[in-house]
Amino acid sequence: MGDRPTLAVVGVTGAVGSVALQFLSQHADVWGEIRLLDAAPDDAGGELVVRGEVTPVLPLTGAAFDGVDVALFLVSDRLSAQWAPVAVERGAVVVDRSAVFRLDPDVPLVVPELNPEAVRARPRSIVASPGCATLSMIVAMGALDRAFGLRELVVSSYQAASAVDGPDGADQGGVFALREQLSLVAGTDLGTRPGDVRRAVGDATGPFPAPLALNVVPWTGPLQGQRDGWSAEELAIRAETRKVLGRPDLRIVATCVQVPVITAHSMSVHACFEQEVTVERAHEVLATSPGVVLFDNPGAGEFPTPADVVGTDPTWVGRVRRAPDDPRALELFICGDDLRKGGALNAVQIAEAVAAELS
Amino acid sequence: MGDRPTLAVVGVTGAVGSVALQFLSQHADVWGEIRLLDAAPDDAGGELVVRGEVTPVLPLTGAAFDGVDVALFLVSDRLSAQWAPVAVERGAVVVDRSAVFRLDPDVPLVVPELNPEAVRARPRSIVASPGCATLSMIVAMGALDRAFGLRELVVSSYQAASAVDGPDGADQGGVFALREQLSLVAGTDLGTRPGDVRRAVGDATGPFPAPLALNVVPWTGPLQGQRDGWSAEELAIRAETRKVLGRPDLRIVATCVQVPVITAHSMSVHACFEQEVTVERAHEVLATSPGVVLFDNPGAGEFPTPADVVGTDPTWVGRVRRAPDDPRALELFICGDDLRKGGALNAVQIAEAVAAELS
Repeated sequence: MGDRPTLAVVGVTGAVGSVALQFLSQHADVWGEIRLLDAAPDDAGGELVVRGEVTPVLPLTGAAFDGVDVALFLVSDRLSAQWAPVAVERGAVVVDRSAVFRLDPDVPLVVPELNPEAVRARPRSIVASPGCATLSMIVAMGALDRAFGLRELVVSSYQAASAVDGPDGADQGGVFALREQLSLVAGTDLGTRPGDVRRAVGDATGPFPAPLALNVVPWTGPLQGQRDGWSAEELAIRAETRKVLGRPDLRIVATCVQVPVITAHSMSVHACFEQEVTVERAHEVLATSPGVVLFDNPGAGEFPTPADVVGTDPTWVGRVRRAPDDPRALELFICGDDLRKGGALNAVQIAEAVAAELS
Repeated sequence: MGDRPTLAVVGVTGAVGSVALQFLSQHADVWGEIRLLDAAPDDAGGELVVRGEVTPVLPLTGAAFDGVDVALFLVSDRLSAQWAPVAVERGAVVVDRSAVFRLDPDVPLVVPELNPEAVRARPRSIVASPGCATLSMIVAMGALDRAFGLRELVVSSYQAASAVDGPDGADQGGVFALREQLSLVAGTDLGTRPGDVRRAVGDATGPFPAPLALNVVPWTGPLQGQRDGWSAEELAIRAETRKVLGRPDLRIVATCVQVPVITAHSMSVHACFEQEVTVERAHEVLATSPGVVLFDNPGAGEFPTPADVVGTDPTWVGRVRRAPDDPRALELFICGDDLRKGGALNAVQIAEAVAAELS
């Protein structure tokens, strides 16, 4: 026990935090003490169960990081920006899930299935985890990149509400808003006349820029950070994918669209490779890649959907097709749980990789 | 009156048929007699209002086409295959909305904003209208093709339920199934655990191969006609777009995805052109193209969504962006009502173009 590193989990009361505690309870146990920290004043002072032990939730303070080897941050950009440097100053390696440090050249951006060795070079003692949209497809695309050499990606997303905070920053605010909207439209004949859904939803749009029930909304995330018409999240998918794959010149564009799904993101991906590919070879690569499940037999009803993959860990890949007029291009449809691999799981995996390297 | 051509509308009791009667009542009146025909025994013998006049609905027989100049078919593939040749034999020009004749080399496939002149060359006396998925984006893409020369299209769709018949072929069966599913999931906490939506929806999937409420389903249309993993609808978008644009070598791939929206299809489009494009030039072209509305100012909440465009006639285009690493590529998000331009409107426009050319 004494040799094993101490982990602090920062942000344990949100949806991602509670999933993280599940993983820490289920995975091979590499940790000595696990210390639970939270900034939400209602919850600090409470207790949560991790590894079967009732564990106090302590308030987020500088002293709370004393003796901590690895600090896993599962909080907002604002809290990460404020507290990650404090944890580093107190001697911890920070594993951060927020967007704050992802593109910092002195911070590695890690997906353990693809670039686990990157955790070692961390001049700021911070390791970052990509955003949920990038994570929903990158394990599969990284596997195909290794096999065939990616040249270009065109991505259109079908993103769930669970990745969206409330307008006031409330955890899972997107889910609450979508559920309220679904109750307003169920049992009606809405969706057939101009503006009828918008009128029925009224000011219950929540964090979304338009009604989401009976609709799809081609803008995700805040207006801040947009550039030349691209949303910050579309630009982030581009920059994060390039960084994780170590391909700073990869051609990649994304269109991010919110859909009325509670949890699990989907991506329609057009991928061009350096060399010719076949569906059979792509199937072989995907079927043997860690963290990926190939589920591709439409005739038997086998293709991934968010409602089917929610609550599971892998990246699910189906609808693999080769472009009829381009033997170097594939189309794929990919689904992954944005709270698990897209949220808590990748960050926990990074923390475990840091622990292995510390001991 | 005597000089004006006689129109028969075949299939007047379905959703597309009733929208067609609205257009025939609102557009400049080019018709002499408008004869209403229907194969559904319950409805034949009834009456419907067109151009403000109560008009009998006659049963579909060979004799019903006597004296008809233009026969507008808004029925299933099966009925079109059976009855279109009968109407031609009786002397009518058939305008057909079904999939039966679309790719016949002796049948022009027409989008009046793009290739109205094609109605003239009709060796079989049949003119076809494209499918709703193709029609939801082709007016905009055709305008950009003329301006910049299309080289390649990558399309991911977000398709509404209203284009989907019931498992028994019932008109609007997709809408009924989606509404039932929405009632089953509203007010629940479904969508967070593996398979919970599938269990709740049970056998209420209707015509869809998986639950559609709280989900997206990466397969549209029947299993028949699939090839190398491509659905028949994905192949149809490819073939129809090439034929309408007169570009048999256009590189085009589509991924068709069903979303829980009642009416109006959306498309995320990646378009590569022969020459450099800018967002400003694309805006100019789109803003001045007939049948297209440019709606592109995300900072002001302006982007098309299906719930906002339902019940309107044009093709709505927003989210126009230039690829950062390809000055010849644009991304766009396009919405259109699958029952209007995607269904009745294009067919009525074709019939009107034939009428103009007959008189």
